[in-house]
Order: sequence, then C-alpha cells, then structure tokens
Amino acid sequence: MGSALAAALLDHGHPTTVWNRSPRKAKPLADHGAHVAATPEDAVAGSGLGGLVLVCVLDYDALHAVLDPVAEAGGLAGKSLVNLTSGSPEQAVEMAAWAASHCAGYLDGGIMTTPPGVGHPEMMFLYSGSQTVYETHRPALAVLGDPLYLGAEPGLASLYDAALLGLMWATFTGWLHGTALVTSDGTTATDFTRVALRWLTGAVSGFVTAYAPQVDAGRYPGDDATIDVQIAAIDHLIHAAHARGIDNSLPHLLKATMERAAAAGHGSDSYASVIESLRAAGRR
Amino acid sequence: MGSALAAALLDHGHPTTVWNRSPRKAKPLADHGAHVAATPEDAVAGSGLGGLVLVCVLDYDALHAVLDPVAEAGGLAGKSLVNLTSGSPEQAVEMAAWAASHCAGYLDGGIMTTPPGVGHPEMMFLYSGSQTVYETHRPALAVLGDPLYLGAEPGLASLYDAALLGLMWATFTGWLHGTALVTSDGTTATDFTRVALRWLTGAVSGFVTAYAPQVDAGRYPGDDATIDVQIAAIDHLIHAAHARGIDNSLPHLLKATMERAAAAGHGSDSYASVIESLRAAGRR
Ligand SMILES: NC(=O)c1ccc[n+]([C@@H]2O[C@H](COP(=O)([O-])OP(=O)(O)OC[C@H]3O[C@@H](n4cnc5c(N)ncnc54)[C@H](OP(=O)(O)O)[C@@H]3O)[C@@H](O)[C@H]2O)c1
Ligand SMILES: NC(=O)c1ccc[n+]([C@@H]2O[C@H](COP(=O)([O-])OP(=O)(O)OC[C@H]3O[C@@H](n4cnc5c(N)ncnc54)[C@H](OP(=O)(O)O)[C@@H]3O)[C@@H](O)[C@H]2O)c1
Repeated sequence: MGSALAAALLDHGHPTTVWNRSPRKAKPLADHGAHVAATPEDAVAGSGLGGLVLVCVLDYDALHAVLDPVAEAGGLAGKSLVNLTSGSPEQAVEMAAWAASHCAGYLDGGIMTTPPGVGHPEMMFLYSGSQTVYETHRPALAVLGDPLYLGAEPGLASLYDAALLGLMWATFTGWLHGTALVTSDGTTATDFTRVALRWLTGAVSGFVTAYAPQVDAGRYPGDDATIDVQIAAIDHLIHAAHARGIDNSLPHLLKATMERAAAAGHGSDSYASVIESLRAAGRR
Repeated sequence: MGSALAAALLDHGHPTTVWNRSPRKAKPLADHGAHVAATPEDAVAGSGLGGLVLVCVLDYDALHAVLDPVAEAGGLAGKSLVNLTSGSPEQAVEMAAWAASHCAGYLDGGIMTTPPGVGHPEMMFLYSGSQTVYETHRPALAVLGDPLYLGAEPGLASLYDAALLGLMWATFTGWLHGTALVTSDGTTATDFTRVALRWLTGAVSGFVTAYAPQVDAGRYPGDDATIDVQIAAIDHLIHAAHARGIDNSLPHLLKATMERAAAAGHGSDSYASVIESLRAAGRR
C-alpha cells in the first residue's frame, strides 16, 4: 500500500521522499523519481515545516517502531502526520495525543480501496482529526483518491473504516452464499452476479436509503416489508440451501436476528428496527 | 402485492379481471376499471384461450386453496399460469408439474421489489419455466417491472429470489451493525449511509465483479486483499463494537467463516474462496 501511495504522488509530480524497512521495495519508486531516505528520521526531515508525513505500515506496533525514535529526537515537531495504517478508533485517539505531545499535527485516515485502486478519484479516503492538516494538505491527499473529512474526533475515520468493512464482509458472505445456491443448480457465478449487483445497487440500496432516516427517527414503519414477512421468506432460503448441502450459518444468524427483533415487538416494523436489538446487546 | 400488480396492468390499459378472497380489497381496483370476478373460476375464465392468469397469494397452501377447485373443474386447460407467490424452488417445480397435469402452461416468478416498486421499469421480475408463456405474455409482464427470463427449469426464479433476499438480509444487517457503531459516537445514520452506499455501489461492487469469475474458475488469487489480511482487520471491528456495547454475533460469524477458509488453505487467497467452505458443509 505504501508503494501505491508514493507512486500516485509521484505520478502527479509531487516531490516525494520514501522509506521502507526493506529497502529493496523502494527501488521501483526510486526509478519513478522518488528520493529514497536511509532512515525514518531522514524521510521525515525530507518534508519542510508543516510538511506532510504519510505513514502506512502493517499495524500500530510497526508504526511506533518506526516513529518513536524520530519523535524522541524531536523530528516530528511542526510536521503534519497523516496516518493511513489501519487500527481501532481507540488507537487513533491515542496516536493523536501522542502526536500532539511531540508537537505534530495529526490526521488519521482510512483507505477504502486496495492498492490498485489508489489514485482513482472515485475511491474514498476517509480522514478525521486536525482540520488544519486536512485543509493544508488536501491537494496532495486528493491525488490518492477522493478525500472525505469526517470531523475533528481522530477516531472517526477508523470507526467508519471498521463499519464499512463490516458491511463489505456481510455483503460478500451473503453474495457467496447466494452464489453457492444458484451455482449448485448450474448457473454460473458470473450470470448470477450480474443480477445480484443490479439488485444490490438498485432495490437494496433504495431500501437502505429509506431506512436510514427511520434509524435517525427511532421509528420503523413497516409499510411494505415487515420483519414478520421476512421471517417467513427466509425459510425458503434455508430450505433451498439445506437441500443443496450449503452451510446455513449466515441465514440462521439472520433469522435469529429478525426473530429477536420480532420478539422485542418489531414484527410489524421494517428491517431497520433490527438496529434496536443490535444496540440492546450492551444493555443485556 | 396483488393490488399493485393489477393496478399496474390497469394503468397501462390492460383489460384486467381481479379476484381476492376478501372482496373489499378489490373495490379500489374496480374504481380503476377492473372487472371484479365473483369466484376464482370466473376470474380464470375471464382471460381467453392461452390467456394470462397471474396469481399472487400468501403461500402455496393459499395457492392450492384458490386454484385446486378451478383446475378440478377443467378451468385451467389452455391457460398461461404465471405464479408470483413466493416459495421454494422445489414448490415451483411441483407446481409446474401440477399445472401441466391440468393442461396449463406454467411460468414461475419472483418479484424483486415491494408493492410501491411495482410498475417501475428498473425493478426486476424474475421468471423461469415455460418460455412460450414468457414470450407470449412478455408485453403484459413488462408492465409490472423489468422481466428477466432465467431458463426453462421452473425452480430457477425461486432459487434466485432466495439467493438475492439472502444477499439483501446480509447487507441490511451489516449496514445496521455499522450504523449502530457510528451512531453510538454521534454520527447520524443518514450521514453514514451516504458514505456506506457509495462504498457498496462503488468499491464493494467492484470487488464482487472481480470475484465472480474467480468462483467460476475455482481459483481465487489474493492479489490485493487476502483472507489473512481481512482476519486481522475484523478484530478492529469486533473491538470497536464491543467497546460500544453492540451485538457482535455477525462479525464473529464472519470471522469464523474467514478462519474456516484460512484453515482450509485459503489464507493467501481472496475472500471469494470462502465459497469453498460454504459448499463443503454438505460434505462434512
Ligand atoms: N492492502 C490493502 O488493500 C489495504 C487497504 C486498506 C488499508 N490497508 C492498510 O495499510 C497498511 C499496510 O498494508 P499493506 O497491504 O501495505 O501490508 P503489507 O504489504 O504487509 O506491508 C506492510 C508494511 O509494513 C512494514 N512493516 C511491518 N512491520 C514493520 C516494523 N516492525 N517496522 C517497520 N516496518 C514494518 C512492512 O515493511 P517490510 O516491507 O520491511 O516488511 C511493509 O512496508 C495496513 O494497516 C493495512 O491494514 C491496506
Ligand atoms: N409485499 C412484498 O413486498 C412482496 C415482495 C415480493 C414478493 N411478495 C410475495 O407476494 C405474495 C403476496 O404477498 P403480499 O405482500 O401481498 O401479502 P399479503 O398482503 O399478506 O396478502 C396475502 C394475499 O393472499 C391471500 N390469501 C391468503 N391466504 C389465502 C387463502 N387461504 N385463500 C385465498 N387467499 C388467501 C390474501 O387474501 P385476503 O386479502 O383475503 O387475506 C391476500 O390477498 C407472497 O408470496 C409474498 O412473499 C411480496
């Protein structure tokens, strides 16, 4: 990911200094015009006052392994640290305090694409933390993908990142379960997926759009499709998947989730009312 | 749903005869120009030879309660029966045989929208079974929504229907879990959903598009995002949700699903390889 970020900056003519623990990985970037620093200290020093320091390593342990010595030598003072390493919201909050204690501005980021998607303007990069850092360096950040500033609370980008990845894994798994179902009767995954994506980006997105304000209002009118109706319908899925020897853990969990909502009095409400049982977990 | 179907036909000037067990529900349709039949027999007789008979009732028990007397009196002979009642693929296959034994053509259908979506050309209506029935009545069916013919095997529409609803419930639940997460820190569901839908219809749909041919090929190169990387990332979600008192059943199931794939040797493969463990259930 670090290579993809640096390559995008270089592609847009941004003077870029790079450092990586394994120097050979920086070689293609050097050929591309990057200045290769010998140490993290030199790399950070490569940017001027208020200069942009982008970090993207495996995790927060690696982050501290790389940056602690730089900070202790005073190297971060006055810099704009933008951290694109994935972590929890709590880690981002801690990191912001750590950066402040070393006199650096801090912006946390979440990259909502894979390396090949970096540099494509439709891909989202989520940011939270210092608005000054964000606004000052927006032109450079915009080269990586479409930057979305979520707010001053540094944990927000990680929180959104986790929430969006959760949505992705749920969608992937639902899609693969459906694909297992139809391919067992001879349809190709490609044929099914054409229909599935039309469904997802059309009707399903329409339902979600309608449900969001229901969540905000805390009222879930089941005008067209109620939880009770969905509970009846999911049995067809469970039955068809069982008959084809397909794992039904996901549909069983979804059915149990709906039944929990119905038991809490939401049988005639929309699917959006399920959020109440998800939240209630902490109160049980 | 029956009312919405009849209203769409009437809106497009199709002469339409309606029948419903509770006659008062047919009243608004009568005002709209529908001929109201006194019995199912009369309703079926209202269409000519090869005539289109659309049925949409609660379930297959209701379907037989309504149609068995008509069929036994020979009333279905030569008709084109289009059944939009939800059921399992197996029920559709049985119904096709039943219709054939009463000399009726049979097309099974799945309505991929709610009643307010009926009549909108972007909404999908899935069909399978008699191609003759489909082609003969395509103009009338196209009035209800965009008709997609999946093949002669009568169970296909129900199979797709179940698979697509499974995808929808999984997506809904993933979205609500993410919404519970971000709203607990003060974001509105509406704000999060704007980003979530962009993510779903952009990057996530892109991944799914790339994964479908992997499933067909049975090879899942993890070029950019591997199962092992996703397993590491889901801990951030589980941690953040746990800290906010949100039910983690879905993320736990997703993590277990990924771990099953990794244990089967797919740690360096893409998420699409999860389909192998879903299918293997029947072989365990
Ligand atoms: N790949 C994606 O699709 C994607 C998408 C969104 C977010 N991310 C996030 O981006 C970050 C990097 O991911 P990646 O895909 O680039 O992973 P990766 O290919 O495994 O690269 C990990 C990087 O971290 C460095 N590193 C690990 N431990 C270190 C240590 N103790 N000291 C110094 N450097 C260390 C590695 O250096 P060496 O080269 O010397 O090993 C390498 O540069 C992760 O937080 C990931 O969650 C990735
Ligand atoms: N609503 C949706 O969003 C939606 C979407 C896709 C598919 N569907 C499917 O469409 C079908 C109908 O759903 P719906 O939403 O219209 O449900 P609904 O509002 O509950 O209507 C059920 C219909 O079935 C009739 N019925 C039930 N039992 C009967 C019996 N024993 N004899 C005769 N008629 C009987 C009812 O007649 P009475 O009026 O006399 O009770 C009513 O007309 C279901 O299979 C459903 O899964 C619905």
